[in-house]
Amino acid sequence: MLEKTTRMNYLFDFYHSLLTPKQSNYMSLYYLDDFSLGEIAEEYEISRQAVYDNIKRTEVMLEEYEEKLQLFQKFQERTKIFQKMKETLQSETDSKNELFSMLERLEKLD
Amino acid sequence: MLEKTTRMNYLFDFYHSLLTPKQSNYMSLYYLDDFSLGEIAEEYEISRQAVYDNIKRTEVMLEEYEEKLQLFQKFQERTKIFQKMKETLQSETDSKNELFSMLERLEKLD
Repeated sequence: MLEKTTRMNYLFDFYHSLLTPKQSNYMSLYYLDDFSLGEIAEEYEISRQAVYDNIKRTEVMLEEYEEKLQLFQKFQERTKIFQKMKETLQSETDSKNELFSMLERLEKLD
Repeated sequence: MLEKTTRMNYLFDFYHSLLTPKQSNYMSLYYLDDFSLGEIAEEYEISRQAVYDNIKRTEVMLEEYEEKLQLFQKFQERTKIFQKMKETLQSETDSKNELFSMLERLEKLD
Protein backbone atom coordinates (compact mmCIF):
# COMPACT_ATOMS: atom_id res chain seq x y z
CA MET A 1 0.00 0.00 0.00
CA LEU A 2 2.82 2.41 0.84
CA GLU A 3 4.40 1.61 -2.53
CA LYS A 4 1.12 2.36 -4.31
CA THR A 5 0.75 5.63 -2.39
CA THR A 6 4.24 6.70 -3.42
CA ARG A 7 3.57 5.81 -7.06
CA MET A 8 0.23 7.67 -7.05
CA ASN A 9 1.90 10.71 -5.49
CA TYR A 10 4.44 10.76 -8.32
CA LEU A 11 1.87 10.17 -11.07
CA PHE A 12 -0.32 12.90 -9.58
CA ASP A 13 2.68 15.20 -9.53
CA PHE A 14 3.40 14.59 -13.23
CA TYR A 15 -0.14 14.56 -14.59
CA HIS A 16 -2.34 16.62 -12.25
CA SER A 17 -2.56 19.39 -14.86
CA LEU A 18 -4.50 16.96 -17.09
CA LEU A 19 -7.15 16.23 -14.43
CA THR A 20 -10.34 18.13 -13.71
CA PRO A 21 -10.34 20.39 -10.61
CA LYS A 22 -12.62 17.91 -8.82
CA GLN A 23 -10.38 14.94 -9.59
CA SER A 24 -7.38 16.96 -8.48
CA ASN A 25 -9.01 17.95 -5.21
CA TYR A 26 -10.03 14.42 -4.22
CA MET A 27 -6.65 12.94 -5.17
CA SER A 28 -4.79 15.66 -3.35
CA LEU A 29 -6.81 15.23 -0.15
CA TYR A 30 -6.59 11.44 -0.30
CA TYR A 31 -2.96 10.95 -1.32
CA LEU A 32 -1.14 14.09 -0.25
CA ASP A 33 -3.09 15.13 2.83
CA ASP A 34 -3.99 11.58 3.92
CA PHE A 35 -7.72 12.28 4.38
CA SER A 36 -9.97 9.20 4.62
CA LEU A 37 -12.70 8.59 2.04
CA GLY A 38 -15.26 9.41 4.76
CA GLU A 39 -13.61 12.74 5.56
CA ILE A 40 -13.55 13.76 1.89
CA ALA A 41 -17.22 12.69 1.52
CA GLU A 42 -18.15 14.86 4.50
CA GLU A 43 -16.12 17.83 3.21
CA TYR A 44 -17.88 17.74 -0.19
CA GLU A 45 -21.26 16.52 1.09
CA ILE A 46 -21.38 13.51 -1.21
CA SER A 47 -21.40 9.76 -0.55
CA ARG A 48 -18.28 7.87 0.45
CA GLN A 49 -18.93 5.59 -2.56
CA ALA A 50 -18.91 8.56 -4.97
CA VAL A 51 -15.54 9.70 -3.64
CA TYR A 52 -14.19 6.15 -3.89
CA ASP A 53 -15.40 5.75 -7.50
CA ASN A 54 -13.94 9.11 -8.52
CA ILE A 55 -10.55 8.34 -6.99
CA LYS A 56 -10.43 4.83 -8.56
CA ARG A 57 -11.25 6.29 -11.99
CA THR A 58 -8.60 8.97 -11.57
CA GLU A 59 -6.01 6.35 -10.61
CA VAL A 60 -6.78 4.48 -13.84
CA MET A 61 -6.47 7.73 -15.83
CA LEU A 62 -3.10 8.51 -14.25
CA GLU A 63 -1.83 5.03 -15.13
CA GLU A 64 -3.08 5.49 -18.70
CA TYR A 65 -1.25 8.81 -19.01
CA GLU A 66 1.90 7.16 -17.67
CA GLU A 67 1.53 4.34 -20.19
CA LYS A 68 1.30 6.90 -22.99
CA LEU A 69 3.86 9.50 -21.88
CA GLN A 70 6.11 7.62 -19.43
CA LEU A 71 7.12 10.78 -17.60
CA PHE A 72 7.55 9.00 -14.26
CA GLN A 73 9.57 6.19 -15.80
CA LYS A 74 11.87 8.63 -17.60
CA PHE A 75 12.20 10.65 -14.42
CA GLN A 76 13.37 7.54 -12.57
CA GLU A 77 15.87 6.69 -15.29
CA ARG A 78 17.20 10.25 -15.37
CA THR A 79 17.48 10.35 -11.60
CA LYS A 80 19.67 7.22 -11.64
CA ILE A 81 21.94 8.71 -14.30
CA PHE A 82 22.17 12.05 -12.44
CA GLN A 83 23.19 10.20 -9.29
CA LYS A 84 25.84 8.22 -11.14
CA MET A 85 27.20 11.36 -12.81
CA LYS A 86 27.48 13.08 -9.47
CA GLU A 87 29.36 10.16 -7.98
CA THR A 88 31.63 10.15 -11.00
CA LEU A 89 32.25 13.87 -10.64
CA GLN A 90 33.05 13.46 -6.98
CA SER A 91 35.59 10.73 -7.65
CA GLU A 92 39.20 11.74 -8.03
CA THR A 93 39.92 10.05 -11.32
CA ASP A 94 39.60 11.72 -14.69
CA SER A 95 36.34 10.45 -16.10
CA LYS A 96 35.40 12.61 -19.04
CA ASN A 97 34.62 9.71 -21.36
CA GLU A 98 32.40 8.12 -18.80
CA LEU A 99 30.53 11.37 -18.19
CA PHE A 100 30.14 11.86 -21.89
CA SER A 101 28.50 8.51 -22.41
CA MET A 102 26.14 9.14 -19.48
CA LEU A 103 25.17 12.43 -21.08
CA GLU A 104 24.36 10.58 -24.27
CA ARG A 105 22.13 8.19 -22.37
CA LEU A 106 20.32 11.21 -20.90
CA GLU A 107 19.81 12.68 -24.34
CA LYS A 108 18.27 9.46 -25.64
CA LEU A 109 15.60 9.69 -22.92
CA ASP A 110 14.20 12.87 -24.47
CA MET B 1 5.30 29.12 -41.39
CA LEU B 2 8.44 26.98 -41.30
CA GLU B 3 8.79 27.87 -37.62
CA LYS B 4 5.21 26.79 -36.98
CA THR B 5 5.75 23.54 -38.87
CA THR B 6 8.83 22.76 -36.79
CA ARG B 7 6.98 23.54 -33.57
CA MET B 8 4.00 21.37 -34.58
CA ASN B 9 6.34 18.53 -35.51
CA TYR B 10 7.86 18.66 -32.04
CA LEU B 11 4.53 18.97 -30.24
CA PHE B 12 3.17 16.07 -32.28
CA ASP B 13 6.24 14.06 -31.36
CA PHE B 14 5.71 14.67 -27.63
CA TYR B 15 1.94 14.36 -27.44
CA HIS B 16 0.77 12.14 -30.34
CA SER B 17 0.01 9.32 -27.89
CA LEU B 18 -2.74 11.52 -26.41
CA LEU B 19 -4.49 12.05 -29.76
CA THR B 20 -7.12 9.86 -31.42
CA PRO B 21 -5.93 7.67 -34.34
CA LYS B 22 -7.75 9.96 -36.80
CA GLN B 23 -6.16 13.12 -35.39
CA SER B 24 -2.78 11.40 -35.48
CA ASN B 25 -3.21 10.32 -39.09
CA TYR B 26 -4.20 13.75 -40.39
CA MET B 27 -1.44 15.52 -38.45
CA SER B 28 1.14 13.02 -39.54
CA LEU B 29 0.19 13.32 -43.23
CA TYR B 30 -0.01 17.11 -43.08
CA TYR B 31 3.06 17.92 -40.98
CA LEU B 32 5.41 14.97 -41.37
CA ASP B 33 4.62 13.82 -44.91
CA ASP B 34 3.79 17.28 -46.25
CA PHE B 35 0.46 16.25 -47.85
CA SER B 36 -1.87 19.11 -48.82
CA LEU B 37 -5.34 19.42 -47.24
CA GLY B 38 -6.80 18.42 -50.61
CA GLU B 39 -4.69 15.27 -50.81
CA ILE B 40 -5.69 14.20 -47.30
CA ALA B 41 -9.35 14.92 -48.11
CA GLU B 42 -9.12 12.71 -51.19
CA GLU B 43 -7.33 9.92 -49.30
CA TYR B 44 -10.05 9.80 -46.61
CA GLU B 45 -12.96 10.72 -48.90
CA ILE B 46 -14.08 13.68 -46.79
CA SER B 47 -14.24 17.41 -47.48
CA ARG B 48 -11.17 19.60 -47.47
CA GLN B 49 -12.91 21.77 -44.86
CA ALA B 50 -13.38 18.77 -42.53
CA VAL B 51 -9.66 17.96 -42.73
CA TYR B 52 -8.79 21.61 -42.12
CA ASP B 53 -11.10 21.84 -39.06
CA ASN B 54 -9.74 18.62 -37.60
CA ILE B 55 -6.12 19.72 -37.99
CA LYS B 56 -6.81 23.20 -36.52
CA ARG B 57 -8.52 21.61 -33.50
CA THR B 58 -5.64 19.20 -33.04
CA GLU B 59 -3.13 22.06 -33.17
CA VAL B 60 -5.04 23.80 -30.37
CA MET B 61 -5.07 20.57 -28.34
CA LEU B 62 -1.32 20.12 -28.79
CA GLU B 63 -0.71 23.70 -27.61
CA GLU B 64 -2.95 23.05 -24.59
CA TYR B 65 -1.01 19.92 -23.69
CA GLU B 66 2.21 21.88 -24.00
CA GLU B 67 0.83 24.61 -21.77
CA LYS B 68 -0.03 21.99 -19.15
CA LEU B 69 2.98 19.66 -19.35
CA GLN B 70 5.71 21.78 -21.00
CA LEU B 71 7.51 18.74 -22.39
CA PHE B 72 8.80 20.61 -25.45
CA GLN B 73 9.97 23.58 -23.40
CA LYS B 74 11.82 21.33 -20.94
CA PHE B 75 13.30 19.39 -23.82
CA GLN B 76 14.70 22.62 -25.26
CA GLU B 77 16.15 23.66 -21.90
CA ARG B 78 17.70 20.24 -21.35
CA THR B 79 19.15 20.23 -24.86
CA LYS B 80 20.91 23.54 -24.16
CA ILE B 81 22.37 22.22 -20.92
CA PHE B 82 23.47 18.95 -22.56
CA GLN B 83 25.25 20.94 -25.26
CA LYS B 84 26.99 23.11 -22.69
CA MET B 85 28.03 20.10 -20.64
CA LYS B 86 29.51 18.45 -23.72
CA GLU B 87 31.50 21.56 -24.56
CA THR B 88 32.68 21.74 -20.97
CA LEU B 89 33.72 18.08 -21.06
CA GLN B 90 35.61 18.65 -24.31
CA SER B 91 37.53 21.57 -22.89
CA GLU B 92 40.91 20.88 -21.38
CA THR B 93 40.42 22.57 -18.05
CA ASP B 94 39.23 20.84 -14.95
CA SER B 95 35.58 21.77 -14.65
CA LYS B 96 33.98 19.50 -12.12
CA ASN B 97 32.24 22.27 -10.20
CA GLU B 98 30.79 23.70 -13.36
CA LEU B 99 29.52 20.30 -14.47
CA PHE B 100 28.05 19.72 -11.05
CA SER B 101 26.02 22.91 -11.14
CA MET B 102 24.76 22.10 -14.64
CA LEU B 103 23.65 18.71 -13.38
CA GLU B 104 21.72 20.43 -10.64
CA ARG B 105 19.97 22.62 -13.19
CA LEU B 106 19.00 19.48 -15.09
CA GLU B 107 17.57 17.92 -11.96
CA LYS B 108 15.43 20.95 -11.26
CA LEU B 109 13.77 20.54 -14.67
CA ASP B 110 12.25 17.22 -13.59
